[in-house]
Amino acid sequence: MFEGAVQDLIDELGRLPGIGPKSAQRIAFHLLSVDSSVIEDLVGALTKVKDDVRFCVTCGNVSEQDTCRICRDPRRVDDVICVVEESKDVAAIERTNEFRGRYHVLGGAINPMDGIGPDDLRVKELLARLGDGTVREIILATDPNLEGEATATYLTRMLSPMGLVVSRLASGLPVGGDLEYADEVTLGRAFAGRRTVSQTV
Amino acid sequence: MFEGAVQDLIDELGRLPGIGPKSAQRIAFHLLSVDSSVIEDLVGALTKVKDDVRFCVTCGNVSEQDTCRICRDPRRVDDVICVVEESKDVAAIERTNEFRGRYHVLGGAINPMDGIGPDDLRVKELLARLGDGTVREIILATDPNLEGEATATYLTRMLSPMGLVVSRLASGLPVGGDLEYADEVTLGRAFAGRRTVSQTV
Repeated sequence: MFEGAVQDLIDELGRLPGIGPKSAQRIAFHLLSVDSSVIEDLVGALTKVKDDVRFCVTCGNVSEQDTCRICRDPRRVDDVICVVEESKDVAAIERTNEFRGRYHVLGGAINPMDGIGPDDLRVKELLARLGDGTVREIILATDPNLEGEATATYLTRMLSPMGLVVSRLASGLPVGGDLEYADEVTLGRAFAGRRTVSQTV
Repeated sequence: MFEGAVQDLIDELGRLPGIGPKSAQRIAFHLLSVDSSVIEDLVGALTKVKDDVRFCVTCGNVSEQDTCRICRDPRRVDDVICVVEESKDVAAIERTNEFRGRYHVLGGAINPMDGIGPDDLRVKELLARLGDGTVREIILATDPNLEGEATATYLTRMLSPMGLVVSRLASGLPVGGDLEYADEVTLGRAFAGRRTVSQTV
């Protein structure tokens, strides 16, 4: 519909996740209408990510050095590893300020439909980190969906015989949510995982 | 939350229209996970648009040459000019295959709230195209909103004394829409613009 370069940019933008043809066109025309420094900054950021960002050799998190910021931080405790699917899950957990241990990024979840098995994830690298006996607990923080649960089950079976405490993030009602709108599975989990709050006087 | 380059990319992506922080993060991690050629293609498309795309000296449409594809096309008729706000409106009208004349892109609409008056639009350039008497009709295809209507009213007043036919795109019910859900103004316009369909036998 448009001439070469503009249509090429719309096509490239349309390949990004969550951007449809209309959004791609809107972004392309936005970039045409603003100062060319905006495009330069975007190109610079993309190039820098392509050239500089790699994955931490220890935990698999995104990093600009061989070892990521969290693995380098001496103030974090070494005896707990939180296992997540993706780097963005690390960011989500860091925002809670609830966890002061280390991470391990699997790079996905077990998904037989897409042909992703344990060997396609960074499971061997996780086992290598448990060799010296420093780690006492593994917190499984995979997604609470089918693939994440399968991955957590697999890891639980593998890690439990090693004498480690293996825990899983709690399932239940989201804070600020409405009980009425919770799905059956979540509400069922909330019942199963209920906690005693009565006080003994 | 992330290390330098990744966060910079998320920030740059988040400045694009319609992309919030979550989408920006999703796109950044998508780009990290795919082959680096995807980033290279995107950078290439951005750079090409920055370097090669300019605006047609005649109509103001986006173009890779001094004059755009439509202004160069000898098969199009020269006596009708369709006036639109933006280049993307040209693309939308071209998709209909209903119009075979030329275009004129104003580069926006009159908007006193944002301080955009007629002098900020390509109105002078439009007048210059009418000088030789070739043009017989001007179709005003500005957006059917407050700013577009104001612009159309302004141009109607300016162009009518020049002996040109000045027309405006029809307002009415969108095809495939539901009468029940049409807003009052649109439904009112549809009544005002009703057409006789009875046949004389």
